[in-house]
Amino acid sequence: MDFLDEPFPDVSTYEDFHTIDWLREKSRDTDRHRKITSKSKESLWELIKSLLDAWSGWVVMLLIGLLSGTLAGVIDLAVDWMTDLKEGVCLSAFWYSHEQCCWTSNETTFDDRDKCPQWQKWAELMTGHAEGAGAYVLNYFLYILWALLFSFLAVSLVRVFAPYACGSGIPEIKTILSGFIIRGYLGKWTLLIKTVTLVLAVSSGLSLGKEGPLVHVACCCGNLFCSLFSKYSKNEGKRREVLSAAAAAGVSVAFGAPIGGVLFSLEEVSYYFPLKTLWRSFFAALVAAFTLRSINPFGNSRLVLFYVEYHTPWYMAELVPFILLGVFGGLWGTLFIRLGKYPVLEVIAVTGITALLAYPNPYTRRSTSELISELFNDCGALESSQLCDYVNNPNMSRPVDDIPDRPAGPGVYNALWQLTLALIFKIVITIFTFGMKIPSGLFIPSMAVGAIAGRIVGIAVEQMAYHHHDWIIFKNWCRPGADCVTPGLYAMVGAAACLGGVTRMTVSLVVIMFELTGGLEYIVPLMAAAVTSKWVADAFGKEGIYESHILLNGYPYLDVRDEFTHRTLATDVMRPRRNDPPLAVLTQDSTTVEDVETLIKDTDYNGFPVVVSRESERLIGFVQRRDLTLAIKNARQKQDGVVSSSVVYFTEDAPQLPASNPQPLKLRRILNLSPFTVTDHTPMETVVDIFRKLGLRQCLVTRSGRLLGIITKKDVLRHMAQMMNQDPESIMFN
Amino acid sequence: MDFLDEPFPDVSTYEDFHTIDWLREKSRDTDRHRKITSKSKESLWELIKSLLDAWSGWVVMLLIGLLSGTLAGVIDLAVDWMTDLKEGVCLSAFWYSHEQCCWTSNETTFDDRDKCPQWQKWAELMTGHAEGAGAYVLNYFLYILWALLFSFLAVSLVRVFAPYACGSGIPEIKTILSGFIIRGYLGKWTLLIKTVTLVLAVSSGLSLGKEGPLVHVACCCGNLFCSLFSKYSKNEGKRREVLSAAAAAGVSVAFGAPIGGVLFSLEEVSYYFPLKTLWRSFFAALVAAFTLRSINPFGNSRLVLFYVEYHTPWYMAELVPFILLGVFGGLWGTLFIRLGKYPVLEVIAVTGITALLAYPNPYTRRSTSELISELFNDCGALESSQLCDYVNNPNMSRPVDDIPDRPAGPGVYNALWQLTLALIFKIVITIFTFGMKIPSGLFIPSMAVGAIAGRIVGIAVEQMAYHHHDWIIFKNWCRPGADCVTPGLYAMVGAAACLGGVTRMTVSLVVIMFELTGGLEYIVPLMAAAVTSKWVADAFGKEGIYESHILLNGYPYLDVRDEFTHRTLATDVMRPRRNDPPLAVLTQDSTTVEDVETLIKDTDYNGFPVVVSRESERLIGFVQRRDLTLAIKNARQKQDGVVSSSVVYFTEDAPQLPASNPQPLKLRRILNLSPFTVTDHTPMETVVDIFRKLGLRQCLVTRSGRLLGIITKKDVLRHMAQMMNQDPESIMFN
Repeated sequence: MDFLDEPFPDVSTYEDFHTIDWLREKSRDTDRHRKITSKSKESLWELIKSLLDAWSGWVVMLLIGLLSGTLAGVIDLAVDWMTDLKEGVCLSAFWYSHEQCCWTSNETTFDDRDKCPQWQKWAELMTGHAEGAGAYVLNYFLYILWALLFSFLAVSLVRVFAPYACGSGIPEIKTILSGFIIRGYLGKWTLLIKTVTLVLAVSSGLSLGKEGPLVHVACCCGNLFCSLFSKYSKNEGKRREVLSAAAAAGVSVAFGAPIGGVLFSLEEVSYYFPLKTLWRSFFAALVAAFTLRSINPFGNSRLVLFYVEYHTPWYMAELVPFILLGVFGGLWGTLFIRLGKYPVLEVIAVTGITALLAYPNPYTRRSTSELISELFNDCGALESSQLCDYVNNPNMSRPVDDIPDRPAGPGVYNALWQLTLALIFKIVITIFTFGMKIPSGLFIPSMAVGAIAGRIVGIAVEQMAYHHHDWIIFKNWCRPGADCVTPGLYAMVGAAACLGGVTRMTVSLVVIMFELTGGLEYIVPLMAAAVTSKWVADAFGKEGIYESHILLNGYPYLDVRDEFTHRTLATDVMRPRRNDPPLAVLTQDSTTVEDVETLIKDTDYNGFPVVVSRESERLIGFVQRRDLTLAIKNARQKQDGVVSSSVVYFTEDAPQLPASNPQPLKLRRILNLSPFTVTDHTPMETVVDIFRKLGLRQCLVTRSGRLLGIITKKDVLRHMAQMMNQDPESIMFN
Repeated sequence: MDFLDEPFPDVSTYEDFHTIDWLREKSRDTDRHRKITSKSKESLWELIKSLLDAWSGWVVMLLIGLLSGTLAGVIDLAVDWMTDLKEGVCLSAFWYSHEQCCWTSNETTFDDRDKCPQWQKWAELMTGHAEGAGAYVLNYFLYILWALLFSFLAVSLVRVFAPYACGSGIPEIKTILSGFIIRGYLGKWTLLIKTVTLVLAVSSGLSLGKEGPLVHVACCCGNLFCSLFSKYSKNEGKRREVLSAAAAAGVSVAFGAPIGGVLFSLEEVSYYFPLKTLWRSFFAALVAAFTLRSINPFGNSRLVLFYVEYHTPWYMAELVPFILLGVFGGLWGTLFIRLGKYPVLEVIAVTGITALLAYPNPYTRRSTSELISELFNDCGALESSQLCDYVNNPNMSRPVDDIPDRPAGPGVYNALWQLTLALIFKIVITIFTFGMKIPSGLFIPSMAVGAIAGRIVGIAVEQMAYHHHDWIIFKNWCRPGADCVTPGLYAMVGAAACLGGVTRMTVSLVVIMFELTGGLEYIVPLMAAAVTSKWVADAFGKEGIYESHILLNGYPYLDVRDEFTHRTLATDVMRPRRNDPPLAVLTQDSTTVEDVETLIKDTDYNGFPVVVSRESERLIGFVQRRDLTLAIKNARQKQDGVVSSSVVYFTEDAPQLPASNPQPLKLRRILNLSPFTVTDHTPMETVVDIFRKLGLRQCLVTRSGRLLGIITKKDVLRHMAQMMNQDPESIMFN
């Protein structure tokens, strides 16, 4: 599939942990495109090749959608099975999960959907006793044992085979999309190990989600399919367009939210997001969502994960508790980000403690998504949950599927206690869990924290309304017998608030929540909570969890959202500084090969400006270190007469020298004749804008046509850190 | 609300039909922000002012949402009433529309929802006879008369009071958002007249929609509220952020689609769309949608305009007709754009013909949105429409609300004929209507064309399936008695295809359709049709209707989506050309006031580069014509000793001259010390990219530090037109 030969092989690739030059990648792609277009007129075969090339973007999207949808489905099925494996096994077929086992059973009645003879808990299977303290302790013990086994496997696999597979991966993907190179981060091994260990980590019952890692998995798929087409594999800029779309597909399968996925990629992850990518992302996200739906891992053939149907509208007065939930979400986000910087590294210990504490409480024992699903649910007639144990009012003749305005029964009070304990447990354990060296996402645990808090508040408001119909706030909308408070909606709002506090997403959060639950009517409560939570969390620190991890790791990430409002000028940032040695430059016609080699050896700059002469300092171009090294090496090997004392010419014509002189080395072809320049008086605000929007790697500084210095992306990042009173040395890579 | 005094009053404003400099506007806003932040530490009052300033963006969004939602509601109510006024009047209260009139009536049964004694057609009211040929002719005549009256009023109001109120307004808004100044286009008068004439134009029964004009109305609201805050009124860049959000609010109220509105603004209308604007647009769009819902003009308290509920999934085989509908949509788009360039200007004549031809056909007589709504609908049990007149199968015992697999009755065949006539009529008359000098949108007419075609195809497929259950394609999914084809879905897909063909929207189209109808399940058919229609239409010409109108009007619009792939360099585009007179420059310390004045008089450039000297040609800065004129005028009036022979100094210090010499004029403060430069070897592709991304007005071209020439936005546009074999002189403004 390689249609084109690169004119200079290897010259154009970047080194690991370096930043790409977007403008250069873009112009290389235009060159390639131009070549294909002009060739396509030559023959039918070339025309077909050019059409294939034009279509390759869509093909890659289709493949990404198919593979990431399939992987997400497989992960869901495997997690489902292994989570249940901790408690018991299906006798009819050991590869069935609890739910699947009882589906296939004919002896199950609707009321006891989760009880069937084929499914046996470990104690029952091993000792024959299903009940009793002994069975409980044995089940408990085996539950912890399985959890430890899973997490041990996960942590070992990650450590041995693919260290990049740990964490959520979103901070690194953001950095990669902004133009940084991390080799192997999106490789085949990372894909394989992350998929396997993600299943293990989630099944072990640790308080982590699969959403962030699924984005990483989808991006690995994107990277994998890029290698099929030279258009994408040989151009780091084009590759990043594909990765942006892959990130959208990842979120799409994580939540069944294709539009939310596209907006997440646009708002949260991507750096360069042209409109063409928007359309392609949407396509990839849809294909992924529909592939997942065809696999149908949850067996309900719905695209939405937590489908809810509320019968009641919300009322203006409810905005108060919603906003309070927003404040809670903001505080949770702050706490999580502050303490998340010091993760506990002992995975096995955390797993053990998690399993030990989680088992006794029914709300923490089940998988987190099941918990969220139950908390979101409205109490319908068929609901057997403890949370729906209300006392029926015998005087009322309302139909049973509508349960308004009733006092809470003992089950609800019991559930409230357990939920409170679960909330404390989840808060503490989630903070300790995120950042461990296994695949771990934070969406679902954060949503769980919020959903628990929300449901508690919801039940409280509901019962308050029941017992105090005469209070002014309830008088208008909560008359006796009216169905006025939906505790499930509070859970949904709380989940959105906590997720927003941690990630600082805005539009994409609301759209994801809306797609997740299918309720357009509840956009205003969700938005109120999301805005409040973002404001509260922003008051304690501007960075979301991803930015915070990027800072922690010192990645050279130039955030599009940070506004640079300081009064500094380019001259304050450029190097050389006042007392530094002068800028390392080459002259167009008076530097020898030896001089160049010394310069390359003595410095580690990525490139050198070329000037007319040291006196005039008038800039004519910029030459990449890598190109220079390769060109000189090649010339020394292949070109006769090029010796150390040969003069390097960057001019259009080298002079005719007598044969006795060493042969000149003409290097104009590797000279970039259009380096980016700004004047020394340019405000840094403009310079930052230029770096961001054009994706520059470096920029030369001139005054009245004279070269004064250079500003690299790292200089910009350092300066920004300095201006924000952070340690400028925290920016670690080039 | 004016917190800041401009250092040079008037200096910073732009002239009409000129392009703004985005970088400059941005840096002016940063200056303003810096001043407010530093002042806010001085006193509590300043702190409050700075908080108010920070909040003003959200306040503006809230106001835009409220006003545009209210206006949309008022327009809907007025159109409803006036459309019905053409046929009759409500006796109980003349300001009631037909539907409202019969709602309030107690004598109405459910079957005859639209028949009640209070509502009388004109003939009945005037002659007492409701039936008969005479009554029909009289009603017909009055229908045409009312239509002529409405359109006459509309066209006169537009011509006399606000010529900018005509058309859809979206091409101009796109141009304005890209940085062009058209004074009065978003003014108060335009707002008022557009609102009134939109009602008149839609009510007159012309084949036009209110969606595009509603975007214009919302942008006028945005502009109106900008003038309340100096942050927005004095900064053309910030103002455009508000206008982008207002456009989203406009689409949001036009379709009840807040997310679709945001994506429409992002994808179709906006030029500079930072993430902050995304969030604010979303807020404005939501407020607008909920304001509209509170007004509840349609009386169904739904946010969605054409709510549909289908009971049947779609099948893979149906993708074939969906794709065919996509092809139809693409062809329709091409036809519309090609012929739409030559609009008929005689509004009254078109109105008369429209009314004459529309009245006899029930599908063209009713308002277009009612028509679309009926075409989208699935045939339920309560549907009394002609389109649902199927022959009941007496052998089947299925419930009545589910009508699968039945032969079409005479009503359906009758409807098919009428729909075919309506399709031809709509196609011809819509092409003639768009472009007339009254407010006119194309969304609804385009959707109607597609919906009619789609419904016809849908019924055809349905009947084919009924009569040929044994055909291979139907065998798998259309067994006898199965509910397999939903004609309403075909109408929806057709509507999306036609809208896509005309506008070339992609993601926003699918999201709008999804929000319009509430069906996430049908995204794949919609997408297939949208993609096909875009490809087919693109094959005949790249521009959508808006771009085509921008070209037609010669607006200087630099499209973000056009890829520039030619091999030209900056040196090929810059002025002066080879045989031109040299570039008009100023020197830093040897030009006299008289020289400058002559230069200003003799040329009409927007600004002049300043060089060290004519010999060295080393660039030191750029000075705006406007600033220069004002500064010299001021100095001549207020500064003693400044005469024609005074030397103008752009250097940091002017030399001390003997008193006998004329006083020097120091103008460094108006000199832009960081003009944008590129080298002459820079590929035009990069230059175009820089112009687009940084929103430049002009860019200077240098070689080895020497100034060679200048490239303005107009030069870039001319060059692009030339490369695309278009007339470069079609770019008309500066």
